[in-house]
Amino acid sequence: MKEVNSPFRSQGTPLEGIGGVHNFNAGPSILPKQVFEEASLAVLNYNDTGLSILEIGHRTPIFQAIMDEARALVKALMRLNNEHEVLFLHGGASTQFMQVPMNLLNEKETAAYSDTDIWGAKAIKEAKLYGNVDVVCSSKEAGYTFIPKDFAVPNDAKYFHITTNNTIYGTQWQKIPNVSIPLVADMSSDILSRQIDFNSFDLIYAGAQKNVGAAGVNLVVVNKNILGKVKRVIPTIMDYRNHIKEGSMLNTPPVFAVYVCMLTLRWLKNMGGVAAIEQLNNEKASLLYDEIDNNPLFFGTVAKEDRSKMNVCFMIKDKEHEEAFLAFAKQQNIIGIKGHRTAGGFRASLYNAAPLTSVQVLVDVMKEFSNKVG
Amino acid sequence: MKEVNSPFRSQGTPLEGIGGVHNFNAGPSILPKQVFEEASLAVLNYNDTGLSILEIGHRTPIFQAIMDEARALVKALMRLNNEHEVLFLHGGASTQFMQVPMNLLNEKETAAYSDTDIWGAKAIKEAKLYGNVDVVCSSKEAGYTFIPKDFAVPNDAKYFHITTNNTIYGTQWQKIPNVSIPLVADMSSDILSRQIDFNSFDLIYAGAQKNVGAAGVNLVVVNKNILGKVKRVIPTIMDYRNHIKEGSMLNTPPVFAVYVCMLTLRWLKNMGGVAAIEQLNNEKASLLYDEIDNNPLFFGTVAKEDRSKMNVCFMIKDKEHEEAFLAFAKQQNIIGIKGHRTAGGFRASLYNAAPLTSVQVLVDVMKEFSNKVG
Repeated sequence: MKEVNSPFRSQGTPLEGIGGVHNFNAGPSILPKQVFEEASLAVLNYNDTGLSILEIGHRTPIFQAIMDEARALVKALMRLNNEHEVLFLHGGASTQFMQVPMNLLNEKETAAYSDTDIWGAKAIKEAKLYGNVDVVCSSKEAGYTFIPKDFAVPNDAKYFHITTNNTIYGTQWQKIPNVSIPLVADMSSDILSRQIDFNSFDLIYAGAQKNVGAAGVNLVVVNKNILGKVKRVIPTIMDYRNHIKEGSMLNTPPVFAVYVCMLTLRWLKNMGGVAAIEQLNNEKASLLYDEIDNNPLFFGTVAKEDRSKMNVCFMIKDKEHEEAFLAFAKQQNIIGIKGHRTAGGFRASLYNAAPLTSVQVLVDVMKEFSNKVG
Repeated sequence: MKEVNSPFRSQGTPLEGIGGVHNFNAGPSILPKQVFEEASLAVLNYNDTGLSILEIGHRTPIFQAIMDEARALVKALMRLNNEHEVLFLHGGASTQFMQVPMNLLNEKETAAYSDTDIWGAKAIKEAKLYGNVDVVCSSKEAGYTFIPKDFAVPNDAKYFHITTNNTIYGTQWQKIPNVSIPLVADMSSDILSRQIDFNSFDLIYAGAQKNVGAAGVNLVVVNKNILGKVKRVIPTIMDYRNHIKEGSMLNTPPVFAVYVCMLTLRWLKNMGGVAAIEQLNNEKASLLYDEIDNNPLFFGTVAKEDRSKMNVCFMIKDKEHEEAFLAFAKQQNIIGIKGHRTAGGFRASLYNAAPLTSVQVLVDVMKEFSNKVG
């Protein structure tokens, strides 16, 4: 295996999965090894309290400190201004598909949505229950293989919704659209992976199980000024304002999932934050895309300029080799590279915690397989 | 300390909390020691897969087996018939306060609710957003110190909602009301603690963090025949039918929380199931209530016949001793016995995993304190 240089190596980043497995799962997905180690210990005995993190009341100073630190880390890592509030809510993005329009869209008003993947389409479906939806751009007809560029967002729409990274087909908005209305994003699969102006978004939501932490919690960042403008009565648990008022402790939070987020965020901060992780993410993505482009056996599936740095989708030219490649990779302890059932082919997810060395192993395996069958 | 007999002792039940702490937290609360141990290991290396349970995809056979076992265990432990479906959903009871009427109550229809604690009152508030609510009984004026007995439930109400155990004030429905309309229960704090006819309920929900497992997941048991009868369009993620259709995997579930539930349910089954745990729960409650009734320093706060076997609420006759007693108990490693801020006094939660020996320690401490100050 080629020697790889990583800014993280000297700082204790795992060189591979905890059991020697190279995990490219799309989510739930790999987290830093030290997060697994610390979380494992906390399940037995949190911070020498003699108590498991699972049996600690959420109203105790112990958990309050965890929640406070998790929220503060998000605020610092994303360089959020004071208008933006950080919440850890129950559920995943699928809950937010409903909760966003419920909080922001009146029945006769219109929201603008982009349709760049199955997840965006699901968000559109739920928004239609609360108001009108104007799908201002779509790559659906082209199999979601690119990010639309030429489109207009009406100035009188209530907000514009995008999915910044498209997990299934592997595209990503490289340039965040500049709009005059509130910008809302499902950032589940690329949050905290690259430097962008997070303050330019008025609402960001992300299921935690990719870059933030463990499944079972939603990270929501919201500009409080956009709230309180709809006429409908919002159920207590769905109103972002109630969660802000209660410091993200309106009801019993998903304690362990929030704790794992805090550990993962702390790891990211110690690693140098978003700027440093972006550098590593760029390095990992380049390594793999270069192999895809240079190896005669494989090819990428989406427009080059829109390629996702989180979910690298590719195919094998001779489809009869597909199963053989998966089996060959599995022999090398590579898991999670089968494409989503609706997209087919392969998908390697390179989230923040995926080590560069695992990508190198995958690239080596692609070369070796190509030599074997080519 | 007096020698105590427990049917569990020989079967590996912890004699005390994992770090020698006697944990009476109201929730999140104590779970079996072996659940902590197994969950801790799984966070490092699940079942020798070389992967953390936190990085395993929810669509893998590995997690599918966990979800299947968790659902089957609930079905077996509750002796559910085939009309009843078992779901593990995001959120806690506060989500169900909204989700229940959303799925069951049309705008002009009426649902009957009982008002026996702050949680029931919260459920009533949310139901009013979806239809009419007839509060058929309430103990609010009496400080929620008893369970109402003489009341009528209209036959034309869509369903009758009760909170089987009232965590804050410490009352419990000892007799489940017999009604001709669908019976719905918030069973968060006494589910699986006693033998009742679970099939007589058409919908049961329970935040997991007391008797079922870890915070961050809701156990929902629903008779599928009561669904699909409302006119409103239900958001995808809120419609129980979608979750049933997808085998409780409509979206990424709270993987770790479901896993901890599975371990806890497996423990309960190995311990002899609901019948055996009921016997232990009765023994624990008797031990503590006897002390409250016989110790001249303490007194119970609710009607004797309605006393909860899960949350034992009591007070000290001379209020000036309250803080001293809490401090004295803490010296003996007893935690979580301060009453809820709205109820005051003390509350010891005796959920399934709370060992009899911890209750004995608490009783001994009450005796000792009484001798000291009396």
